[in-house]
Amino acid sequence: MIIEQAMMKAALQAYVDGINAGDAEAVTALFAADAIIEDPVGTPAKRGPDIAAWFADTIAYRTLIKPVAPVRGSHGEEAALAFDVEFSPPEGPRLRIRSVDVCRFDAQGRIVSLRAFWGPEDIEVA
Amino acid sequence: MIIEQAMMKAALQAYVDGINAGDAEAVTALFAADAIIEDPVGTPAKRGPDIAAWFADTIAYRTLIKPVAPVRGSHGEEAALAFDVEFSPPEGPRLRIRSVDVCRFDAQGRIVSLRAFWGPEDIEVA
Repeated sequence: MIIEQAMMKAALQAYVDGINAGDAEAVTALFAADAIIEDPVGTPAKRGPDIAAWFADTIAYRTLIKPVAPVRGSHGEEAALAFDVEFSPPEGPRLRIRSVDVCRFDAQGRIVSLRAFWGPEDIEVA
Repeated sequence: MIIEQAMMKAALQAYVDGINAGDAEAVTALFAADAIIEDPVGTPAKRGPDIAAWFADTIAYRTLIKPVAPVRGSHGEEAALAFDVEFSPPEGPRLRIRSVDVCRFDAQGRIVSLRAFWGPEDIEVA
């Protein structure tokens, strides 16, 4: 299956815009009900109801995403977003992570999986 | 398994340097014998002997890779490289692709899988 490039790219732009606007509901609505988030890659996946709580925290931490390049599509049902993200966790200083999110989409353009590539050395004080 | 971040990042830097230096053997040597390349994502995988031929073509096409951000690691055995790449295919003009390559590594730091995220709209005349 090849998903419309424009549909995947619009969803990832809406993801960036929703987080930057502080709209957790809009961001959560971009995901399918049975979606899986692995953030960062190599840690246990978050599923279903965990995802709404994850984005509620994301917004509470005043998260700002800055893409560093145009979204990449594919010849399948996946796309990739390279970005820097800043956020303020409950304790400690504001932080910056350098990440690449790889997302898989269903035929309706909803995100069914998100894998965030960042390692222990890709996080720093903002 | 978590792979050393520095090992993965050094391998991806060697990948960029090897291609830009026109050294197909050095690039092929970064891959495990049973590695799989899916470039672009959504097309049939190249394996084993196909990989040496793939990089011989890559070099013949005078390919130049320009990373657009630092390599992202992970908390597992994968890392991601966001880049623009220019190359001259046998026919037609020189082209530019906007890509993200996601690589999985073995314990020795060799690439066991490479998936290149770029879609039909991520390629243009250079």
